[in-house]
Amino acid sequence: MELRILGCHSATPKPGEFPSSQALSVHNHWLVLDAGEGMQMQLRRYGVKFGRIKHIFITHLHGDHVYGLFGFLSTLRLLDRRTEMHLYGPPPLKRLLDEVFHATQVELTYPLHFHSLDADEPRLILDEKKFTVRSVPLLHRTPTTGFVIREKPAPRKLNPEAIARYPEIGIWAYHNLKDGKDFVRDDGSIIPNEELTLPPPAPRMYAYITDTAFNPAIVPEISGADVLYHEATFAESERHLAEKTGHSTAAQAAEIARMAGVKKLIIGHFSSRYRNLNVLLEEAREIFPETELAHEGKTLIF
Amino acid sequence: MELRILGCHSATPKPGEFPSSQALSVHNHWLVLDAGEGMQMQLRRYGVKFGRIKHIFITHLHGDHVYGLFGFLSTLRLLDRRTEMHLYGPPPLKRLLDEVFHATQVELTYPLHFHSLDADEPRLILDEKKFTVRSVPLLHRTPTTGFVIREKPAPRKLNPEAIARYPEIGIWAYHNLKDGKDFVRDDGSIIPNEELTLPPPAPRMYAYITDTAFNPAIVPEISGADVLYHEATFAESERHLAEKTGHSTAAQAAEIARMAGVKKLIIGHFSSRYRNLNVLLEEAREIFPETELAHEGKTLIF
Repeated sequence: MELRILGCHSATPKPGEFPSSQALSVHNHWLVLDAGEGMQMQLRRYGVKFGRIKHIFITHLHGDHVYGLFGFLSTLRLLDRRTEMHLYGPPPLKRLLDEVFHATQVELTYPLHFHSLDADEPRLILDEKKFTVRSVPLLHRTPTTGFVIREKPAPRKLNPEAIARYPEIGIWAYHNLKDGKDFVRDDGSIIPNEELTLPPPAPRMYAYITDTAFNPAIVPEISGADVLYHEATFAESERHLAEKTGHSTAAQAAEIARMAGVKKLIIGHFSSRYRNLNVLLEEAREIFPETELAHEGKTLIF
Repeated sequence: MELRILGCHSATPKPGEFPSSQALSVHNHWLVLDAGEGMQMQLRRYGVKFGRIKHIFITHLHGDHVYGLFGFLSTLRLLDRRTEMHLYGPPPLKRLLDEVFHATQVELTYPLHFHSLDADEPRLILDEKKFTVRSVPLLHRTPTTGFVIREKPAPRKLNPEAIARYPEIGIWAYHNLKDGKDFVRDDGSIIPNEELTLPPPAPRMYAYITDTAFNPAIVPEISGADVLYHEATFAESERHLAEKTGHSTAAQAAEIARMAGVKKLIIGHFSSRYRNLNVLLEEAREIFPETELAHEGKTLIF
């Protein structure tokens, strides 16, 4: 997987800062996670080809996560896109798009399939050949879901040297071997799969969790993620603001990462009050050392 | 006046390019002209204080002129703005804002006064103490108006040396002198105003004309402008596209500038097809030499 952070600040902009939006590459798909204002410019800036995007996931209907959607979808029609686009988000997003496109006279040249997301329980919302996407209810001031992208286990890898020792194993048998099946000779005797194949790379997993108050209920859904992006709008010194506004502190984000046993935590959605983000980073690292700050243009390959 | 160009490209973005938006400073007001996506980031980047903006003018309801409005108005409430904001635009803009703010749960903390603009004839739409704004109907695919901002004539300047020669002229008379009135002595004799005052600087005038097909009907409204911004989406070689889409060529923009006798022409709203904008610049300069290309961050003081 390859993650590119397009914007990672909360709603009030400072010079050069963009609100929430990310692009995740998984098996030749680019998935877009949230669409803060300026998302299409940021996609261009960080080299994500519009034509490779087929799925957009919106966590919730606050402006800093969705106001970039109109421009992007509208631009695609100017590029004469014909390929279908799939959009996942809260139920009222459909009407919002209809109203905006009606008022601004946008007629799409491509099919836009809207998938309405309920924020009541975790759900499988996309089941592709090589990966899945699940929605995870979060705790915010409006119905909000995070998203978990998980590769499906890859087939086992053939071990050519081992296979060469057995002339009776023809190419016709490779498919079953990759599926993990033992090789059965004509006389019924067995060559165990483990002798003929190597384990595949572990399936990768990414969790995108924003915006939310501290919510341990999500831990089973994000458990073991290679990378967890978790909002950390505030520091513990502003915990009362976090509670009031349905956001997390850096310490709370780190606590979730620790509980879920993820490999790496990226914190983002910073309040504009923090001129120096190190206060957030240090707070999180005390609880979960493998923490990094998000920043625009940050790229992670995992 | 001070003009800052925040974005000057047409709808399809290239890296680092923003759609139409400008800020114009006139007598301590910042006026915003169009609100393309990313406008609030660009205001921050180019140092325009949000609190100094009280008037926003939208030419028409195409996304590249209005999709930045939602984020900006929404951010102002996060900054706890209390001062009123005046918004001028086509009639359906009101409903569009209502729908967007309803869906994204935006409750403004300040009064937003919407002024509905008809695109049928030129109108005086704002009459401030020191300047006026007029709307000018343009020729586009949807109702569209350009805007002309004009300083009111300033009072004449007192000439202290001349006044010192006449002890009978007290401070009480200065107001009338600034207004251009002659000084009348007690005996009825007259000292002509021109002897006592100097002419004020000529009132400044800015015309913002986008998007439009070639439209000589606007010439009387923009005549004598210090600066004319006129869209030049295409070159003459794409004139058929300009006609089809309700846009102008660089040569047509220059022809309007020439007919209106403006002092300077800035062309913008470039189609993304032109990698090198000099083709547009040279085409315009052949007709109107005092032409410049718009670019993001361009500042003009006049």
